[in-house]
Amino acid sequence: MRLRFRPVETSFYDHFSTSAQHLVVGAGLLAEMLTEGADKESVAKQMREAEHAADETTHTIVKQVNSTFVTPFDREDIYALASGLDDVMDMMDEAVDMVLLYEPKVLPAELLDQVELLQRCADLTATVMPGLRSMQSLDEFWIEINRLENAGDRNHRRIMAHLFSGEFKAMEVLKLKDIAEALEGSIDAFEKVANTIEQIAVKES
Amino acid sequence: MRLRFRPVETSFYDHFSTSAQHLVVGAGLLAEMLTEGADKESVAKQMREAEHAADETTHTIVKQVNSTFVTPFDREDIYALASGLDDVMDMMDEAVDMVLLYEPKVLPAELLDQVELLQRCADLTATVMPGLRSMQSLDEFWIEINRLENAGDRNHRRIMAHLFSGEFKAMEVLKLKDIAEALEGSIDAFEKVANTIEQIAVKES
Amino acid sequence: MRLRFRPVETSFYDHFSTSAQHLVVGAGLLAEMLTEGADKESVAKQMREAEHAADETTHTIVKQVNSTFVTPFDREDIYALASGLDDVMDMMDEAVDMVLLYEPKVLPAELLDQVELLQRCADLTATVMPGLRSMQSLDEFWIEINRLENAGDRNHRRIMAHLFSGEFKAMEVLKLKDIAEALEGSIDAFEKVANTIEQIAVKES
Repeated sequence: MRLRFRPVETSFYDHFSTSAQHLVVGAGLLAEMLTEGADKESVAKQMREAEHAADETTHTIVKQVNSTFVTPFDREDIYALASGLDDVMDMMDEAVDMVLLYEPKVLPAELLDQVELLQRCADLTATVMPGLRSMQSLDEFWIEINRLENAGDRNHRRIMAHLFSGEFKAMEVLKLKDIAEALEGSIDAFEKVANTIEQIAVKES
Repeated sequence: MRLRFRPVETSFYDHFSTSAQHLVVGAGLLAEMLTEGADKESVAKQMREAEHAADETTHTIVKQVNSTFVTPFDREDIYALASGLDDVMDMMDEAVDMVLLYEPKVLPAELLDQVELLQRCADLTATVMPGLRSMQSLDEFWIEINRLENAGDRNHRRIMAHLFSGEFKAMEVLKLKDIAEALEGSIDAFEKVANTIEQIAVKES
Repeated sequence: MRLRFRPVETSFYDHFSTSAQHLVVGAGLLAEMLTEGADKESVAKQMREAEHAADETTHTIVKQVNSTFVTPFDREDIYALASGLDDVMDMMDEAVDMVLLYEPKVLPAELLDQVELLQRCADLTATVMPGLRSMQSLDEFWIEINRLENAGDRNHRRIMAHLFSGEFKAMEVLKLKDIAEALEGSIDAFEKVANTIEQIAVKES
């Protein structure tokens, strides 16, 4: 007789879904942080809480990998996916922190274009997570995240060209460049998550 | 009876050779871009085309890995090598784009030293690719790329010291630093390709 | 009969211990380099020697992996650990080089806080290396290095906020930012070493 009900495996998918949900929250807070008139202190505090919650989900997954005999896919891949999702949160948290600490005089509107891409990445990732169980329709996800990452790359270069245009002082450029790079790094981190998922799907197929 | 003729496997080597050839073209365009009096718009356009061609070769390899039953070496290693070669192209393309978009006032001659190293890395990689089939003389390749990468590191530090010498304005330093880092990143990306090849060779030996 | 005495395996642990000892030396030299009144030329020269010695240990390990039939743990993990330890040394060497070449006017005291964390990472890593053989008490090591890395992250953001406060000229900020990032990168590199060790321990347990 083969048992159908495998509670431990199932909960991995649930944790990954929770992890992706944290990223939706984080991307939303990042958007708020970059909006004019935002209460920066308060948003940064919420972001810290979201980051801690994400950390706990990651720890839960890692502990579970180490204590579970049968895992739904390779231990290494579970670890890679969990830490990949965690990396996205860390980078978005870093971006929020920089906006708070560096106190840039202006926040060019193009930065919000990047956060919009980030929010779409987060939404897509949260949508696809329950589909991990059946390994279906993951190709489209991977293609779409790659498309968003390419768009983010182009945005980033335009932002940098703007920062270097002579409109801003060198010190402001330094601050905004760091923030822009943290946003681009967050999008790259989503692409790494998509690549990990794609690799898992290829193995399982 | 064992079949001698394995057309599918063979074509992997051909695609990798094509991929390395794209890098030779890309490194040449990068050299042109940094040469005084270059038609920057036109070179950047050719670079975009070269980058697209490289992308297509990468996609062909990845699609083939997923649809081929017997591969000449581990699927993961084929994937790592294909995306490693693609990363080099992306970084060189980024460097060209920065020179076009940032419009630095001068391009210090030391930057061309870095591109010369890059061209030697590209030539070596293109030369060694057909040798992948026999896994021969790869040690020398790996040692030489590592030597070039060390030389690139030293060049990079000298370039940075020059940029920080007080000869350039802060804004120019910011632009040139980004370009110099993209060049150094391209050389590093070649080293990663060499490491991947070395790891494949160790496994196969 | 099972042979108890396996000299070749044993020496891997010895080499890893040597490798970690190089990092203790390197972190000490980095601390000296950032101390007021240091003979920068002389410290940088000692650092180069320490870096070469570390390189040789790494090469010895890699050569031994390729020529040994039975290794104490997976070849890939030995390779990852050896090159992870080597990366820490390279980053600390880079930081020393930057202090020498960039000639920053002042070195903010907070940079020494980072080096203190680095020294604790190096000491911990050197202490834990002989324990690799028994795979004991590695959890605490991993947790502590992660704690230090988090502290380093927070330090780094404070350093950046200070650099951007208006107290320093843009050119000085550029120099100090590079140095601060090399220090943070060194701590991150220790975290990667700790993650590799943790992964080895999980596999072996």
